[in-house]
Amino acid sequence: MPSLHDATGPRVLFGGDYNPEQWPEETWADDVRLMKRAGVTSVTVGVFSWARIEPRPGERDFGWLDRIMDLMHRHGIGVVLATPTASPPAWMGSLHPETLPRAEDGSVVWYGSRQHFCPSSPVYRRYAAAITRDLAARYGDHPALLMWHVNNEYCTFCWCDGTARHFRRWLRDRYTTVDALNEAWGTAFWSQRYDTWEEVIPPRKAQYLRNPACTLDFRRFTSDALLECYTAERDIVTAGARRLPVTTNFMPFWIGQDAWTWAAQEDVVSVDVYPDPADPHAAQYGAMIQDMTRSQARGPWMVMEQAAGAVNFRRVNVPKPRGLGRLWSLQAVARGADAVCHFQWRQSRQGAEKFHSAMLSHAGEHGRTYREITRIGADLARLGPRVAGTTVTSDVALLHDWNSWWADEQEGRPSADVHYPTVVRAWHRALWEAGVTTDFAHPEHDLARYRVVVVPHLYLLGDTAVDNLVAYVHGGGTLVSGFLTGAADEDDRIRPGGMDERLRDLFGIRVVHEWWPLPAGEGLTCDGPRPFRATLWAEELETSTARTVATYRGGELTGMPAVLRNGRAWYVSTLPEPAALRELLARAADEAGVRPVLENPPPGLEAVRRGDLLFLLNHADGPLTVTVPGRHHELLTGGLVDGPVHLERHGVAVLA
Amino acid sequence: MPSLHDATGPRVLFGGDYNPEQWPEETWADDVRLMKRAGVTSVTVGVFSWARIEPRPGERDFGWLDRIMDLMHRHGIGVVLATPTASPPAWMGSLHPETLPRAEDGSVVWYGSRQHFCPSSPVYRRYAAAITRDLAARYGDHPALLMWHVNNEYCTFCWCDGTARHFRRWLRDRYTTVDALNEAWGTAFWSQRYDTWEEVIPPRKAQYLRNPACTLDFRRFTSDALLECYTAERDIVTAGARRLPVTTNFMPFWIGQDAWTWAAQEDVVSVDVYPDPADPHAAQYGAMIQDMTRSQARGPWMVMEQAAGAVNFRRVNVPKPRGLGRLWSLQAVARGADAVCHFQWRQSRQGAEKFHSAMLSHAGEHGRTYREITRIGADLARLGPRVAGTTVTSDVALLHDWNSWWADEQEGRPSADVHYPTVVRAWHRALWEAGVTTDFAHPEHDLARYRVVVVPHLYLLGDTAVDNLVAYVHGGGTLVSGFLTGAADEDDRIRPGGMDERLRDLFGIRVVHEWWPLPAGEGLTCDGPRPFRATLWAEELETSTARTVATYRGGELTGMPAVLRNGRAWYVSTLPEPAALRELLARAADEAGVRPVLENPPPGLEAVRRGDLLFLLNHADGPLTVTVPGRHHELLTGGLVDGPVHLERHGVAVLA
Amino acid sequence: MPSLHDATGPRVLFGGDYNPEQWPEETWADDVRLMKRAGVTSVTVGVFSWARIEPRPGERDFGWLDRIMDLMHRHGIGVVLATPTASPPAWMGSLHPETLPRAEDGSVVWYGSRQHFCPSSPVYRRYAAAITRDLAARYGDHPALLMWHVNNEYCTFCWCDGTARHFRRWLRDRYTTVDALNEAWGTAFWSQRYDTWEEVIPPRKAQYLRNPACTLDFRRFTSDALLECYTAERDIVTAGARRLPVTTNFMPFWIGQDAWTWAAQEDVVSVDVYPDPADPHAAQYGAMIQDMTRSQARGPWMVMEQAAGAVNFRRVNVPKPRGLGRLWSLQAVARGADAVCHFQWRQSRQGAEKFHSAMLSHAGEHGRTYREITRIGADLARLGPRVAGTTVTSDVALLHDWNSWWADEQEGRPSADVHYPTVVRAWHRALWEAGVTTDFAHPEHDLARYRVVVVPHLYLLGDTAVDNLVAYVHGGGTLVSGFLTGAADEDDRIRPGGMDERLRDLFGIRVVHEWWPLPAGEGLTCDGPRPFRATLWAEELETSTARTVATYRGGELTGMPAVLRNGRAWYVSTLPEPAALRELLARAADEAGVRPVLENPPPGLEAVRRGDLLFLLNHADGPLTVTVPGRHHELLTGGLVDGPVHLERHGVAVLA
Repeated sequence: MPSLHDATGPRVLFGGDYNPEQWPEETWADDVRLMKRAGVTSVTVGVFSWARIEPRPGERDFGWLDRIMDLMHRHGIGVVLATPTASPPAWMGSLHPETLPRAEDGSVVWYGSRQHFCPSSPVYRRYAAAITRDLAARYGDHPALLMWHVNNEYCTFCWCDGTARHFRRWLRDRYTTVDALNEAWGTAFWSQRYDTWEEVIPPRKAQYLRNPACTLDFRRFTSDALLECYTAERDIVTAGARRLPVTTNFMPFWIGQDAWTWAAQEDVVSVDVYPDPADPHAAQYGAMIQDMTRSQARGPWMVMEQAAGAVNFRRVNVPKPRGLGRLWSLQAVARGADAVCHFQWRQSRQGAEKFHSAMLSHAGEHGRTYREITRIGADLARLGPRVAGTTVTSDVALLHDWNSWWADEQEGRPSADVHYPTVVRAWHRALWEAGVTTDFAHPEHDLARYRVVVVPHLYLLGDTAVDNLVAYVHGGGTLVSGFLTGAADEDDRIRPGGMDERLRDLFGIRVVHEWWPLPAGEGLTCDGPRPFRATLWAEELETSTARTVATYRGGELTGMPAVLRNGRAWYVSTLPEPAALRELLARAADEAGVRPVLENPPPGLEAVRRGDLLFLLNHADGPLTVTVPGRHHELLTGGLVDGPVHLERHGVAVLA
Repeated sequence: MPSLHDATGPRVLFGGDYNPEQWPEETWADDVRLMKRAGVTSVTVGVFSWARIEPRPGERDFGWLDRIMDLMHRHGIGVVLATPTASPPAWMGSLHPETLPRAEDGSVVWYGSRQHFCPSSPVYRRYAAAITRDLAARYGDHPALLMWHVNNEYCTFCWCDGTARHFRRWLRDRYTTVDALNEAWGTAFWSQRYDTWEEVIPPRKAQYLRNPACTLDFRRFTSDALLECYTAERDIVTAGARRLPVTTNFMPFWIGQDAWTWAAQEDVVSVDVYPDPADPHAAQYGAMIQDMTRSQARGPWMVMEQAAGAVNFRRVNVPKPRGLGRLWSLQAVARGADAVCHFQWRQSRQGAEKFHSAMLSHAGEHGRTYREITRIGADLARLGPRVAGTTVTSDVALLHDWNSWWADEQEGRPSADVHYPTVVRAWHRALWEAGVTTDFAHPEHDLARYRVVVVPHLYLLGDTAVDNLVAYVHGGGTLVSGFLTGAADEDDRIRPGGMDERLRDLFGIRVVHEWWPLPAGEGLTCDGPRPFRATLWAEELETSTARTVATYRGGELTGMPAVLRNGRAWYVSTLPEPAALRELLARAADEAGVRPVLENPPPGLEAVRRGDLLFLLNHADGPLTVTVPGRHHELLTGGLVDGPVHLERHGVAVLA
Repeated sequence: MPSLHDATGPRVLFGGDYNPEQWPEETWADDVRLMKRAGVTSVTVGVFSWARIEPRPGERDFGWLDRIMDLMHRHGIGVVLATPTASPPAWMGSLHPETLPRAEDGSVVWYGSRQHFCPSSPVYRRYAAAITRDLAARYGDHPALLMWHVNNEYCTFCWCDGTARHFRRWLRDRYTTVDALNEAWGTAFWSQRYDTWEEVIPPRKAQYLRNPACTLDFRRFTSDALLECYTAERDIVTAGARRLPVTTNFMPFWIGQDAWTWAAQEDVVSVDVYPDPADPHAAQYGAMIQDMTRSQARGPWMVMEQAAGAVNFRRVNVPKPRGLGRLWSLQAVARGADAVCHFQWRQSRQGAEKFHSAMLSHAGEHGRTYREITRIGADLARLGPRVAGTTVTSDVALLHDWNSWWADEQEGRPSADVHYPTVVRAWHRALWEAGVTTDFAHPEHDLARYRVVVVPHLYLLGDTAVDNLVAYVHGGGTLVSGFLTGAADEDDRIRPGGMDERLRDLFGIRVVHEWWPLPAGEGLTCDGPRPFRATLWAEELETSTARTVATYRGGELTGMPAVLRNGRAWYVSTLPEPAALRELLARAADEAGVRPVLENPPPGLEAVRRGDLLFLLNHADGPLTVTVPGRHHELLTGGLVDGPVHLERHGVAVLA
C-alpha cells in the first residue's frame, strides 16, 4: 500500500491549496515564481473546480488543468489532485433538486455555498463517480501528480426521504430484523416501536426528546454514508496502473466522522488545523489535534490546511503574530507531520473566504505574511532530510471514541454543560503541560505498548472495549479514568449499577448511587494530598476494594470519594481543576515509570522528541532559556549548542 | 360522582408509573417483591403502551396487560390504568401524516419522540377512541383497577390546515358572525379584517407582531381542543356499569391548559411536581403547585408524578439529597395530597428518559434511592388513616386566571421582562414565608369565605370578574392587587383610563397616566413605612380617594404613589422586593384577622395544618428546633411532644 | 416639482396618523375637537385601510373616507392620504398564496400581521395599482388633501420562486451575460459558477457561508424591487391634473432601502424617528437621523412618525418623561423638519400596537400625554412662520452609503463585532458633541462645498467614489477616514494591497499588511498627543509619505501607526474611544476653519442654527445656563434675552 513517504521522499512537503481557476491565466507565472522563492514543493489543485471542469452536465473542460499540471511539473512542484465533489455545480441542484440536503425541519439546504449534496443521493454519486473517473484517466499518470485528495472536509448531514431510505438499508444491515432494532433502540419506551422498516425515519424535528439510540445510529450511519462517498471515489482513483496514495482531509476533532474508521481507508491521514491565535491555550489545542492525527495515521501525517494568518469563520478573526505560523508549523513537524500545507496559496479577492488569509496575502509579495511563509519554507527544506519518515513514540495513550462522544451529546442528559471535547482537551492539556507526549487510541486497540492509558470520559463502552481495559490493567498497565465512564453499552443501554460491573470490580467500586453534575461555574472543594476544586461533575459512589485518594467537601457529598484507586486502576469522578489534574496524571505516570521529555521545562516551553531529534518550541509570551543536557547540533541555524538554549519569542530549536 | 377517596379509602396512595413493557417478563416478579417491600399501593400502567397494545392498525395485544393486571391484583396493588393516547405508534404518522402536528412555520413535528399528534385530527381521535373503548371494555371491571388516567400531560400545539378548520368552527361557536370576530379582534388595525370564515387561520409565522386577540383565542382554542380529546376518552371509560374516578395529569403551572376548566371535567385532579433541588426556593415552588392543585381539586388531590431523584429535562439535573424526597412527599400530604406517586417505578435503561430517576434506580435495591423510597412508603402507611380525605383550609386566596396569563404573554407588550408566573410566584412566596396558607382561586369564584384576596397581576379581567372583586370588597373583604391589573377586558381590549373604571373607583385611582416598566436588574427606591426596592414595573398614577402608603423616589416618578389603599382595597403598582412584599401582605392579612399557622417560626420551617394535624417541615440547611404550644402525639415516630420539637435536616414532624 | 413647502406654507405641520376606521363614527367629532385644541394641522389617513376600502376583491367602500375627508376639510385640518398597500387584506393571502413572502428557509410568511406581501408578486402589484388608481381618482382634487403618502415603511424581503425570477431579470439588466455575473460574483470560488440564468437563485438557506457578492446584489435588488412598488404607485397618484407632493416614510437608518436612491424619487422625504428614552445618547441618535434625512431631502423634511410616549417594539418600553417629547420635536425643527407628526393620534384599544403611545393616550384628554402634545402644538404654531422653508447649513459632511453597509454585513467577515451603524453613530456623536453641525453625503456627491469630509467606515468604495475623494482633497478639502475604508470595489472585490491604491497614495500608506479586529470589550492603548483607547479594530500598516499621529502600544502592533495623516488626508485605523475621536475630529475641523455653533457649550446643550434662528436644546439631566453673545428675541416665550439663557430640564430656547 502506498504511504505518505511515497509522496514526500526525504522532504517535508510545503505548500497549499492552489485555485488557479480564480485567477487570469497570466497570474500563473507569477504564482510559480513566488512559490519557488518560498520553497513550495506541493500544491493541492482542483478542490473546488467541478463547475469549471464540468460547466454543464456531462461536458468536460480540462484544458486549463492540463496547463496547470504541466506548469507545475515544469517547475518541479508536486500536485495533490483533488476530486472536486465537495461542491457540485449549480446546475446539479437546479436540475436535480433531490441532490440537495434537507435539514432536520425539512427545509432545503440550497446551493450557493458549498457541501450542498445529500450523501445518500444516487444522482450525486453518479455524477461524482463520472468526474472522478475522467480525472483519474486523464491525470493518473501525470508526472506532477503526488497524491489523490478526495472531496474536502466531508461534513454533510441530511434528513431527506432519500436519506431515510438509505438509513433503513443501513439499519437492516446492522440489525437484520425490525425486532432487533426495537430491542436495540428501546422503543418500548414512549410507544416508539416500529412495526415495519418503512416506518423508520431519521431523527427529524420532534415535539420533545428523541430516541437517543436512534440519534446515535443516525450519527453512525451518516459517518458511514459519507465514507461510502469517499471509498467510491478512492476505488476509482486507485483502479489504474499507477497506485498513488489517497487521502481526504479531516476537520479537526469533528463530531461527524468516526476518523478511526475513516483513517483505516486512507493511505495518508490529513487534517486541517486551525487553532485560534486569540486562545491562550492554542498551542496545546494544536498539539492535541496533531497527536490525534498522528495516532490515526500510525506514522507520518499531513497538515492539509492551516492558515498563514487569520481565518474568517470565527466571530472575531485575529491574524497570526510574527513567528507564530512558523512555530506552529514546526510543532506539527515535531509531532510527526511530513507535510505542512495551507489553505490557500493566493488570497481570494472574491467569494466567501476572501478574508481567510493565504500564503500570498492581499498585501502581495511585499506583505509580512509572504515573508514569513518564505522563512518557513526554508526551515522545512533544512529539516526535511532529517525528519521525513521518522516517528514519535509515546508511553501514554488517551482513549477517544466517536461512538461515545455521539452518545454523550444526547438530548436529555444529566448535564448539558458537559461537552465531550472540552473534557478530552482538559486531560490532554494536563499531560501536555506535564511534558508527557501522548498518543490517542481507540478503546479496542491493543494497548500493551503503553505504560499508562487515560480515559478522560467514555460514557459508552462496548463489551470488547471493557474487556480490553480490564486485560490491560491485569497485564500490568496503569489506567486512569475520568467520570461517567462505562455507563452505557454500545446500544446506549445503561449498565446496571451505573457502570459496567467489570469496570466497577477493576476500580473497586461497589455501586454508583448518583451522578451529581455541577453547573458551569460552580464547583466543590476536594481534600486529598492537596485540596483542589472539582468542576463540572461529581458522583456519589460506594467503594468496595478501592482506596480513596481524595474526598469531596461541602454539600451532600462531604467525605465521599472523589478520586480513588484500586492498585493501578484509578477513577476520577469529577474534572479536577487544571493544576490538580496535571499533578494527578503526572503522579500516575511517574509511578508507571513514564518520564517527561525534559525535566522541569520553563512554563511555555514544549519539548518533543521525533526520531533522534529534540524539538524545543517556545509558546511563552517572551524569550526563554532552556537547559538541555549534553552537546547538540541545532539544525535550523546550523550552530552548536552546549548548555543553555536561548529561544526568542515564538522561537524554535531543533537539536540533533 | 366518584372521587379520589373511592380509590384511596383510608390510605395515602403510594407508587408510580410502571412500564412493564420495557422489561422482560421475568423481571416482573422482582418488581412486585420490591414494590411490596417499599409499601407501594398503586401503580400507573399503560401510559405509553399504544404501540405494544396495537402493534399495527386495528390489531390488539392485551395478553401482557392481562397478566400485569392479574399480577397486581394478586399482590394487592391497585392499578391506575392509562389510555395510551399521548404517544401514537409510528405507523400512525407513517400511514396518516396528517395526524402529525405542524409548527408555526409550517414544518412537520415528526414521530420518534412523544405527543406527536394534532389534537384536531379526526383520524387521531378515531384511533384514540377505538383503543380507549377496547381498554374500557376489557379492564373496566378488573378488581385491580382503581382509577382511569387519560392520556398524559396534554401539551400539543398545532398550526396545520386541519387545525385551521377546527379553529374556525370554534370561533364560529364563540362569535357566530365574522363581523363579531372582527370586532372582538380589533381587525380594523393593520387592515386585518376577515371577510369570510375561510380566511381565518391560526397565528402562524408572520413578518411582525401578530394580532394579540387572535393569539389569545388560539390559546383558548388549543386548551379546548385538547380538552375535547380528554372528554371524549373520559366519556368512553365512564360509560360502563362500574363508574371509577377519572383523571389526567397536569404539568405544573403550565401555560397550555386552563386547568380551572379542565379540573371541572375531572373526578380527580392530579399533577406532576418537579421542583429543582438546585433552586433555593424549591420548597415554596412545590407549595405553590400543591396549593394550586388543591384549589382546582376542591379537596384531596394526587401527585401523579414526582422524581425520586434527578430529572433530565433541565440543563443541569441535580439529584435529591438524602431526605429531600421524603420531605417533599410529606409536604404534598400536608397540603392535601392523598396520593404520592412517581415517574417511574424502575429506571429505564434505554430511551429518552433513562437519566430520569426512578423509585428503583440503576443502582437497584441496594441503591440509596430505593432505601429512601422505602422510608417514604412506611411513613405514608402510618399517616394514611389519619389524613386521607381530610382538608386544608385557608383564609387567603390568590387569584389566577389562564386567560390573563395568555393575554399577558403577548408580543409587543410594554415589558418582555414581565413573566406572569414569576410575579405569581413572588406573591405566593411572600405569603408562604409569612406562614399563611393560601388557596388559589379564579377571579370569578365566590370569594366570600376568604378574609383576604390577593391579585398578583391580572392584566385581563372580564366584567364578571371585575364585578366580583368589587362585590367582595364591598362585602367586607380585603383585596390587595398588584400592578397592571384590570387593564384589559376579556377580548384584550384596553379599558379606557388604563384600568377598568370600577376598579379605579375601588382603589381610589383617578387615572393611570403611564406604565413605566423597569428593565430587569434596574429598580427604584420607594419610601413608605420602610424604604424598599421596586422592581420590574412602576406606574404613573393619579389618585382620587386613595391614601398613599409608599411613594417612588428617584427619576420621573419621584413622589408619586407606589402603594396605595382605599380602605380595604390596596393597589401595589410595582413588584416590591421579597421582604417588602412579605411585610405588606402580612400587614394586610393581620389587619383582616388572618393569623399564620405558627407565630414566629424559625426561617426554613413550614407549618401547615391539615384536618386536625399540624405538619412541621424543615426546609432549612440544617436541623431546627420549633416550639409548639401544648402536648402532642408525633405520628411518624409515635412519640409524645411537649415543648420544643427537634427536626433533623429535611426532617418532618406530624403533630396530632 | 412640488415640495414640502407646497403642503406646509408658512407652517410647521403638526399631527399624526389618524385611523378613524378603528373607532365608532361617533368618536370622530371628539377627535376633531381635541385635534383643534392641540393645534393639529395635518393628519395621515388610510395607511392601513385596505381591507376597509376593499372588503373583498374588487369592491370599494369609500363612504367612510369621504366623510373623514370632508370632516377634516370642514375643520381646516389637512390630510396626508396614504395608499394602503403595506398591509393587504386577508383575502389576498387566502386567494393568492403566491403573494405571501417566503423566508430564507422557504417557510411562508403569513398574513395576520402586516407587510405580508412579496414585492415581486405581479398579483400584489396589480391589486395595489388598482386601489391606488381609485384613491387618486376619488380624492386627487379633494381640498383637504395636502400630500400623498405611498405605502408605509417598505421593509419586505422575500426568497420565493417569483422573487427568483424577478432577481434574474434584475441581474440580466445589470450584467447582460451570465459570464459577466460569474465574473462579478467571483463564482470560480467554491465551484459556484452559473451556466444559465435559470440556475440563479436568491441567497437562500445554505450549509455554510454564501457568496457575498450575490448577497450584496440581492440587497440591491430588494431595495430596487421595493422602489418599483413605490414608483408604480407614485406614478399613479401624480398622473392627475393636480400635482401634489408624494412621500413614503423611511424607517430610520434602516438597512433594507438605499435611501439616497429612494429620496431622489420623492417630492418629500419623511422618516419615522424613535429614539429610546432609556438610551443616554438618545438625543444624539435623534440628531443623526435628522441630519441624515435632511441631507437626503436637500431641504426641509418631515417627521412622519414619532411616539408621544412609549413604543412597544423594544424588550422594555419606557415612556417619555415630562418635556422630552417637546424637546425632541423642537430638535427636529432645529435640524430642518417642517412637519412633526406622530404615530398615532388616538391610542388603539386593540391590535398589535395598543401599547404604542399616541397623542391622545388611553388616559384621554386629562392624561399627561395630551397636555404635553397641546404644548408642542402651540410652540410649533408660534415658530412656523419663522422657520418654514428655511435651511440648515453645515461645513462638514459624513459619508454614508448603503452599498458599503450591505457589503460590510457579510457572513465570514473579519469581525462580526463591527456593526456599521454603530461606527457611523460613533463618528456622528463625536461631531455632535463637538458642537459641529453635520450633513450626510453619498461618496459620489459633489463635496466641494464642505470644509471637512469624514468617512467613518466605507469598506466598499467604487472607482467613482474613490476618484471623488481624491479630487476633494486635491481641491483643498480635509478628509478624515476611519478604518477598513476602500478595501473593496463595487462588486465587493478586495482591492490589491488591502486598500485602493489611489487612497493609499492619498493617505501615504504603502501597504496594509493585516487587519486586526479587536474583540468587543478588548482594546489597545494608543500613544499620541494624548493616550487613548483603541476599540473594535486595528490595522498593521506600513506608511509611505504619511506622518504618524498616534501609535499602538501593547501586543503585536506596538509602535505601529494607529492614526496618520498625509497633509489634509487623515486615516484612523481603529475606533478611538469617544473623547479621543471627538478631540481628533475637532482638531481636524478647527484646522480646516470649521467652528462649532457655540463656543464651549455646557455638557448636554445642543445648539443648532436654522436660517437666522439659534436653537438651544437642553438634553442634560437638570437645568442649564448658556451664555449667548448679543441680544436676542426668544420666540417661544416672546421675551428678550441679553446674557445668560436659563433652560429648565428638557427646556428649549429659540433665539432670533
